[in-house]
Formats: sequence, structure tokens, C-alpha cells
Amino acid sequence: MAPDIPTLRRDFPTLAQIVNGHPLVYLDNAATTQKPQPVLDALNHYYRDTNANVHRASHALSGQATRAFEAARGKVARFINAPAPEQVIWTRGTTEAINLVAHSFGMHHLQAGDEIVLSTLEHHANIVPWQQVAAATGAVIKVIPLTAGAELDLEAAARLISPRTRLLAVGQVSNALGVINPVRELIAMAKSVGAVTLIDGAQAVGHLPVDVQSLDCDFYVFSGHKMFAPTGIGVLYGKREWLEKMPPWQTGGEMIKSVSFEHTSFGELPFKFEAGTPNIAGAIALGAAVDYLSGLDRAALARHEHKLLQQLLTGLAAMPDVHIIGRPQAGSVSFTIDEVHPQDLATLLDMQGIAVRTGHHCAMPLMQALGLEQGTIRASVAFYNTEQDIAALLAGIHKAREFF
Amino acid sequence: MAPDIPTLRRDFPTLAQIVNGHPLVYLDNAATTQKPQPVLDALNHYYRDTNANVHRASHALSGQATRAFEAARGKVARFINAPAPEQVIWTRGTTEAINLVAHSFGMHHLQAGDEIVLSTLEHHANIVPWQQVAAATGAVIKVIPLTAGAELDLEAAARLISPRTRLLAVGQVSNALGVINPVRELIAMAKSVGAVTLIDGAQAVGHLPVDVQSLDCDFYVFSGHKMFAPTGIGVLYGKREWLEKMPPWQTGGEMIKSVSFEHTSFGELPFKFEAGTPNIAGAIALGAAVDYLSGLDRAALARHEHKLLQQLLTGLAAMPDVHIIGRPQAGSVSFTIDEVHPQDLATLLDMQGIAVRTGHHCAMPLMQALGLEQGTIRASVAFYNTEQDIAALLAGIHKAREFF
Repeated sequence: MAPDIPTLRRDFPTLAQIVNGHPLVYLDNAATTQKPQPVLDALNHYYRDTNANVHRASHALSGQATRAFEAARGKVARFINAPAPEQVIWTRGTTEAINLVAHSFGMHHLQAGDEIVLSTLEHHANIVPWQQVAAATGAVIKVIPLTAGAELDLEAAARLISPRTRLLAVGQVSNALGVINPVRELIAMAKSVGAVTLIDGAQAVGHLPVDVQSLDCDFYVFSGHKMFAPTGIGVLYGKREWLEKMPPWQTGGEMIKSVSFEHTSFGELPFKFEAGTPNIAGAIALGAAVDYLSGLDRAALARHEHKLLQQLLTGLAAMPDVHIIGRPQAGSVSFTIDEVHPQDLATLLDMQGIAVRTGHHCAMPLMQALGLEQGTIRASVAFYNTEQDIAALLAGIHKAREFF
Repeated sequence: MAPDIPTLRRDFPTLAQIVNGHPLVYLDNAATTQKPQPVLDALNHYYRDTNANVHRASHALSGQATRAFEAARGKVARFINAPAPEQVIWTRGTTEAINLVAHSFGMHHLQAGDEIVLSTLEHHANIVPWQQVAAATGAVIKVIPLTAGAELDLEAAARLISPRTRLLAVGQVSNALGVINPVRELIAMAKSVGAVTLIDGAQAVGHLPVDVQSLDCDFYVFSGHKMFAPTGIGVLYGKREWLEKMPPWQTGGEMIKSVSFEHTSFGELPFKFEAGTPNIAGAIALGAAVDYLSGLDRAALARHEHKLLQQLLTGLAAMPDVHIIGRPQAGSVSFTIDEVHPQDLATLLDMQGIAVRTGHHCAMPLMQALGLEQGTIRASVAFYNTEQDIAALLAGIHKAREFF
């Protein structure tokens, strides 16, 4: 059954905004998604009714807050099919999760000559931390190039991944181009040489079902704010053997077993990676976002999103001066228009209430590889977008082109 | 004029809770404070009306979100009298802020034999990161001991702080004992030997006016959730010369100038320390907490809190088997009762709706120094507490003692 999008949209107050005199057409979901009322309700409920610090429960509110906080961890674990809640580590977001792995795994388990395999499609968050590791350890970064169709070149990957490869870190869905990477094949290649694997799921969790055990990756990372939850909360999933082997990164309260000026010993999973008061409300609200998504027919929502992408791609393909970049499959569609600066188009679209993003999308190496110095225009959908949204974007582009 | 506490309390919905059949008496403010409705309104307003990612503004909502986010930085800068907004770095909280300084200053600017001076009163968050730095660099930790009155021993500090001292890191107010440390004198001692200074203001910002220029410290750190703002947001203030000299710590999007696989260059302050999508809503709501506090007569609130502490101390002093630890001056009062395990008392208080905290308060070395293996009972006030709250606690202790 087709999902009832108009009814679902009522859950998202922001979508009813009027922007520059027009109803908001929000097509910047790859940057951040809007939040449904149940997520806001979870925040408000926590702060109004149970606000207290966690894990040191001497009183009722603290006990309630701790139970809600740890229940959220369990919800996220089930959402990605993690074997156990303690393999879900709370972070600020995808970036901090990758930085954690870069420090606790990369700095401690890589050495000179070890190879880190990334791809040209990566977001800066999955490049720069590894450059830091490479600079500190002498490890070497190898980059899987693109095919002529701007997809990850699997044959080249097969040649690059070798017994020297110690880590493969790739995105599941490109934030810039919306292409779904063949992460299963890549993980299999990495495993065949004994390499560790990290999958950046920031652009996947809002669109695809994620099963970390089926993927069999060592690490999986994502952000709450890109899956209808608040800013400031994200997740590192890790295999237990690695999480246990890795030293803590940030240190302080919450993550210790005992502290003295002579000797400090660290706590168990997940706490050893969670120094200081966590984003308690954010974690609880991410749990509420998981509940919200789990109550929907996600397969039907994915089909709906796919239809929207097809509508957009068909509409763009009919414009002879428009160039679609690569083969968008989930979330994002990037394109350029001959002789039109992306930012100029975005400005004219914004005047019509249409929100898209332009530029390098935190993927400068990709833009360089594609020869796109000005970046692209990126329209990115969530399940709450409608055929009218896409029609408005296409009409908006037509109208803007008249202006140029 | 005395502040109208009953009216102010209406701003804090949690305070109206009934807990275990009794009106909540919330005396766990040193763990986390309750949030006034204007802070919750700021969160809701952001998520309902302007939610978008920041700093890559291609559209109206993104521009609004960016302006609100950066305005919050300006509010915090004014709140602590920082010379410029870009000297305010958003972190998850105090712990992350100290970890940032430990990595970007400690790991890069300390070397074998350099001395780091801490105090026996420190929270684990201001101990363990420095132990990590010491282990990695060969720097040596020196600890300012306590006087017989459980206060920081200034004479001993004067002997410990020497030309070998490269960093002094101390709390302004002890989270465990509520004592206000003589940070001005300590900073002066450190400056006289050319040492860098970090002040942990986590327990100060909610109680005292803070002026980082007047203190003349190099770094000042605090958490939003202990000053009526949400969890997951905090602040590192730093002197510009240090912030500019220090390398970034976490890396990824938002903090770069340009990225290629050959060379990456980092952005300007404050962004070079803020990798990834920040806790946008948290920062904006922290700005709202600053607005809320700034609208009150803080000197009058401080006098009110002082009266509450006196009332509590007088009441406790009248109980012969109760021992007040040290000389509480702001926020927290720690005590023990002969033959009573702190947690047992807390449980009996909780049954009366009274929330206190027990244990080591993330200050195990302090508890060891004081010979308090079971820790203490800690009652901690905020300005919204009342004489009735203190009376309820004192009566609750009496009632509990009958039980033992």
C-alpha cells in the first residue's frame, strides 16, 4: 500500500512553514532532516518530567533518566541489528564517531606502511581523520577511484585492497551523488585480506534498512540529525572484539572504574568510550526517532522515495542544459546547469521557498575528480517529500533558467 | 530586593513533579540543573520553525539557523566576557572541552619533565585527561594538597608551582564540597612562572558571575546542562594566541578550508575546533539560558542561594552525628552521618521525594584523601530552591535517622 504522505507530513511541523511567501519545499534532507512531533515530544517529556543525570542514581528522577537513556541504546541496537546494546556508543554524530575510531583504532593499531583504503566519494569526515592517522603513524592512504559513470570502481578496488590493507573506510550512500556503494562486495574484499572495515552510514540510515551483522562490518557510524532525531547525537557501532581491544579516547567521569593520582582504570563497554555527561535528551530522542520509523512501513517509504527520485531525474533529463552527476539511487541528486552558477540557482529557488544545497557538499576531492570547481546543486529527499515538491523544484528550475 | 522564587519556579516545569507521592525537592543541581520553559521554547522553536544545517547557507532556513547559532555564541561570549565570539568553541560539555585542551595543547606543547599542577579537589574530568597527556609526553602531574579544613592549600601551591610548571588546571568551585577555590591567586602564581592556566567552571557558571578577562586564565570550560541549558552542549573559552597556535583535534567537515588527498588545510577560529554538524539546537538553547539568566538579578539570586546554604549548614550542624565536609560556599554541601551509609540515607530521602546524590561525586582522589571510602551525601542547590526545600531535607534526615 502506498504510504499516506500528507498525513505523515503533519507529524513534521517545519514542513508547514511559509518561506519567502511560498510553502516550504524542503529538499535539503542530506544536510539535516526535519523532526517529527514524537521526537520533539520525547525531548520535552524528558526535560519537563524526568530531567536528571544518569548512571549515578541516588533518586527517582535519576533512575528514570537512566532507564530511558539505556532503553534508547537498546532501541538503536535493534534498529541496526547490533548483537548487544553495549556495542552502541553514543557520540555527537558521524564525525565524532569516525574520529573515535581514528584515534582508538587508527592511532593504536596502524603502523608505517599499513594501508587505509578510502574512496573518491568520501565525505571530508571520512577523509581528514585518516589523513591525521596517516601523518601520525606512517600509514598510507589509498583511494578507490571512480568509473566513468562516477561510481566507485570495484575492479580498481579489487586491485587496491591487498594484504597491506589494514582498514577500509567507505560510505554506504554518497552524500554528494546519492549513489549506493557496493559495500557488501567491498567488505568481503577487505575481509579476504584481514582488513578492518568502517561503514559511514550517515546518508543510509534515513533511507535504507541497516543490518550491521548482515553487513559484517567492524564499525558502522551515523548521525541522529539525518534520521529525524536531534542534532548533537550519533552512534558508533563496533564489533565487541575491537571495542574491547581499543583504548578509550576521551576520558573523564562516567568512563572510569577507579581513579587515583597513581593509577586509573577504565570502565566496561559502552561506558569506557563515553566520558562526561552524555547528550541524555538527544539519545532518548534518537530512540523516539527509531520508534517513529519502526512504526512505519519503511519498504513502502523507500518505494515512495524512489518514485520521487525517478520523477526528478526524468524531469531534469528533459532539460538539455542540465547534467545529472552519476547515478543517484538514494536521497540525493546532484546536477549542474550549463553557464549557471549553482549558488545563483539556489538563490532563485530559495525565493520560491525551495531549499536545496550547493557547493562541494564536504566532498572536495570528489568535486576535483569530476572537474566540478563550482560544485553542484543537490536536491535531497526524505520520505515526507511529495510529487508536488519535485514538481515545484522542476518548475522552479524552469523559472530560474528564464531569469538567466 | 529578594527574588520572587515562587514565581521563578513556575518557569521550571520539572519542579512541579510529584515523586514517590511527595512534591519533588530537587537538591541534585550539581549533577544537572532543571531547564526553564524559555530554554525548552528555544529548542522547540528551532526544531519547529528553523531547523536546518548551518554554515552552508543556500536557503532561508539554513541562513536563519546559522544566524541563531552564531548569535548564541555571541551571547555566551558576553556572558563570560570573552573578547570575541570566535574564542567560544562549542563542545559536548566540560569533559570534552578539557579533552580538547589535553590533546591540542597538552599533547603538542608539553614534554618530558614539564609539570602539570592539579589539585586534590578535582573532578575526574580534570584529572584523567592529564594523566593521558602525562603518559604520552612524560610530563609529570603535581597535586596541590588540602589543608586540614579540606580546602586547597595555597602555601603548598606556592611551593609546587615552579618554573617547571607548564600548566595549572583547577576547578573554580568543587563539585564535591562546594568550596570556592582561590583561582585568582593560583592563576597569578601560574602566570608568574609562565604557566598556562585552565579553569574548570562547571560548578561555577550557574552560581557566580564569570569574567574570563578579569580572571586572565588561558582556558575556561563549562557545561550547558549545569546552567539550565540542555545536555550535549558546552563551551571551551580560550585565549586567541593559544587557540590559534593549537592544532585541531577532531577533524572532518565544517572545520576545513580545503581538502584533497594530497593536502588538507584547516579553517579559522572557531570552526577549526568544531568538526562535523554541531549540536545546533543545544547551542541555541544555551544562548536562551544565558538570556534567561541575564534577565534576572543574579546578585540577588546568589544571596538567596547563600541563605539556603547557611540554613542547611546550621541545620546539619545541630545534628551531632552529622559531619559537614570542608567549608561549602557555593552550590554543594557534602556531609556524612555516623554509622549511616550515604546510599541508605539517599534511598530514604528519595522515598520522601527528596533528590540528593551520594558516592564519590567523580572525585575519588578527594574521597581517598579525606578517608571517605563510602563517599558523602551531597545536597546541591540552584536559585530555584526554597527554604522549604532545605527544611524538607533537614526533616527528611531526621526522619531517616529514626529509621536507622
